[in-house]
Amino acid sequence: MPLLIKNATIVTQNRKREVLKGNILIEGGTIASVGKDADTTGQVLDASGKIAMPGLVNTHTHLAMHVFRGYGEDMPLHQWLEERIWPAEAKQTPEEAGISARLGFCEMLRSGTTCFVEMCIHDPNHIFKAAKEAGLRGTIAQGIIDMGDSSGTKELLENAKSVLGYRNGMLHGSVAAHAPHTCSEELLLKTKELARKNKLKYQIHVSETRKEVFEVLKKTGKYPYEYLESIGLMDEDSIFVHGGWLTKREIGLAGKRRISMCACPVSSLKLATGGIAQIKELDSSGASVCLGTDSVASNNSMNMFETMKMAALLQKFHYWKADAIPAQRVLDFATIGGARAAGFDSGAIEAGKPADIVLLEKGPNLRPGHDIVSNLVFSAGPQNVTDVVVNGRLVLQDRHILTLDEPAVMEKANELAGEIMER
Amino acid sequence: MPLLIKNATIVTQNRKREVLKGNILIEGGTIASVGKDADTTGQVLDASGKIAMPGLVNTHTHLAMHVFRGYGEDMPLHQWLEERIWPAEAKQTPEEAGISARLGFCEMLRSGTTCFVEMCIHDPNHIFKAAKEAGLRGTIAQGIIDMGDSSGTKELLENAKSVLGYRNGMLHGSVAAHAPHTCSEELLLKTKELARKNKLKYQIHVSETRKEVFEVLKKTGKYPYEYLESIGLMDEDSIFVHGGWLTKREIGLAGKRRISMCACPVSSLKLATGGIAQIKELDSSGASVCLGTDSVASNNSMNMFETMKMAALLQKFHYWKADAIPAQRVLDFATIGGARAAGFDSGAIEAGKPADIVLLEKGPNLRPGHDIVSNLVFSAGPQNVTDVVVNGRLVLQDRHILTLDEPAVMEKANELAGEIMER
Repeated sequence: MPLLIKNATIVTQNRKREVLKGNILIEGGTIASVGKDADTTGQVLDASGKIAMPGLVNTHTHLAMHVFRGYGEDMPLHQWLEERIWPAEAKQTPEEAGISARLGFCEMLRSGTTCFVEMCIHDPNHIFKAAKEAGLRGTIAQGIIDMGDSSGTKELLENAKSVLGYRNGMLHGSVAAHAPHTCSEELLLKTKELARKNKLKYQIHVSETRKEVFEVLKKTGKYPYEYLESIGLMDEDSIFVHGGWLTKREIGLAGKRRISMCACPVSSLKLATGGIAQIKELDSSGASVCLGTDSVASNNSMNMFETMKMAALLQKFHYWKADAIPAQRVLDFATIGGARAAGFDSGAIEAGKPADIVLLEKGPNLRPGHDIVSNLVFSAGPQNVTDVVVNGRLVLQDRHILTLDEPAVMEKANELAGEIMER
Repeated sequence: MPLLIKNATIVTQNRKREVLKGNILIEGGTIASVGKDADTTGQVLDASGKIAMPGLVNTHTHLAMHVFRGYGEDMPLHQWLEERIWPAEAKQTPEEAGISARLGFCEMLRSGTTCFVEMCIHDPNHIFKAAKEAGLRGTIAQGIIDMGDSSGTKELLENAKSVLGYRNGMLHGSVAAHAPHTCSEELLLKTKELARKNKLKYQIHVSETRKEVFEVLKKTGKYPYEYLESIGLMDEDSIFVHGGWLTKREIGLAGKRRISMCACPVSSLKLATGGIAQIKELDSSGASVCLGTDSVASNNSMNMFETMKMAALLQKFHYWKADAIPAQRVLDFATIGGARAAGFDSGAIEAGKPADIVLLEKGPNLRPGHDIVSNLVFSAGPQNVTDVVVNGRLVLQDRHILTLDEPAVMEKANELAGEIMER
């Protein structure tokens, strides 16, 4: 059914980064016109006094961990992983990962996220199913890890292939290797080859902690990006996640190969990795910067407004420059940059683009409107999100989720969380 | 009228930091009982499935600047101050500061803040009037500055005295000097004397930037806290704001004198001061740590949930320790610590305490509930705040502000903001 959003203030994120007043006409999941007189026989959404912006893209999630939020807080990192997270993950079933993911999708919808990039450790089919129910756009891979022992590589690759069939337009399969310090070179090469052959996005954690940088350096004689470049893993279809500890030369490589570099600023602080991804320099070098929350076990929310703000603040802090990075550029990372990383043409409100749109109520925290883009990056939050459209379909209306049964999702997730603590 | 909050999960912040299930009975602005069977002839608020927590205390605001949100973004700090903020402030009238403050109070109410400490540059009577209308608790001073020239000290002090009469139980006058590098020693001494004589809280910005630390060092031969100690300004009634650049010896002094030390983590990052207030060590030393947003011109929101999260994250980052500071302690700073700084007995849900209480809906972002305190510090936000009680009076109900006319406040603030840009 066509959908007409009327009388919005539209932060288009088009090439000229125009802010327009007017209507958005959506037909067949695609934006038909922006800012023009329009009429429809379909549904009409009055957005008078509201802001319409492109849906936010969260380019790093681990949705199975959503039920681990707050499970083992204020513990040293390794104790937390070894005593809490890893045992809980090991006992989780793929079905349970799907329950957990639905909770994450409720949180995404309520905070204006329309698209995500997921790396899961289980059979990802339950995540695909949940995402389809939620009506979200996403790119999903099973993250593979062999701890340097390539004897089981063949079997692991077979598992990874289970997602290759997903190409329904809104949900894409993807390939992921865990990280250069936890995967054998054979696994890294074979996974990238599988992604290339199937024209899929490739996800990998790189240089999250200083410790792992030195592990790679010791193992290969090269810094992580240099090593991955030397074996051919850096290209436009690769999403390198974290990048908290990069050398200038690595930043140069990221730009030369135009990789997508996903920073997860909140998670990096929460896990006390000590590193701040230098997204200002990565952006200047030509890399395509995007932003993620990481799992809520290390965030502890899935709020991309907060992640934009944190990303911007950390650049100002790191460079001791209040004007280190413009708010506009950070909004670009969370929309256009995210969509590019995920492999979709969304991220802007322009005719011909997929209709992923968020409406925001201008509550007191978005007044006055001296600078609407700064307000989105530094002042907006889930409290402002009233309606969400993904691929032309209304999935959140007047703060009610239309796709998932939210109370049931929350109850099931709570039950599962209780069970996890008793296992 | 008595008020009964029924069936809440109560994060009491009492001495034992108990989390209880049950009722809160409020009579005459005071908490009569907690967690017990109770009945009332007054109003009943069903809080089934909700969390009740003490109202958050924001111990550093400049409310007149609320209409400057987003006015001059992404500019170097000094250009922003000199070309935008200072000229706009100079042209603002005290009445306009009141309009601006009302917008700030709407934002506070919607984000669970029940008490604030304000330093304004105008005649503060309009801020008092606005706060009374909003039904908030607060401590308000006119910040005095002489740029080192004490010839006008007497007149400045006369102005500061205009607030001494405010002692109505919910709103207190206070005395404030701008900062040690912008005030003559005579002004510092006379303002502190005025505060002491009237038993008022004393506010001062100290060690926000490295530059000002060196200015004080050059002028006095001492680091700022050491200098202020040497002239008798450090005591339990002083709130030292920022503290981003402290030596270990200064942290020791803060503890010895048991000052309130207010960190404004978001503002410090946004202004790129480069310093992180070491609230972990300040707390250990015996200082009473509290948290503030600073003005929205440098934040750009007045969201104390965000400020708690940022405060916790920055300690983890700074010390490279995921368990640098417990979530519980950060919640203490924003409730008990804040109330102490502001000079009120609030900050906990206990019989006999003033009834400042916030109810939160457990949306998907607060599920599951493995750790309710971690959820409040790291996952909660304004989207969860449904009801706010200040001094026993319901001021926000079902997300509607009952005291101020919010649409009118927003419209007036928008108009004023438009005028400011044309001046």
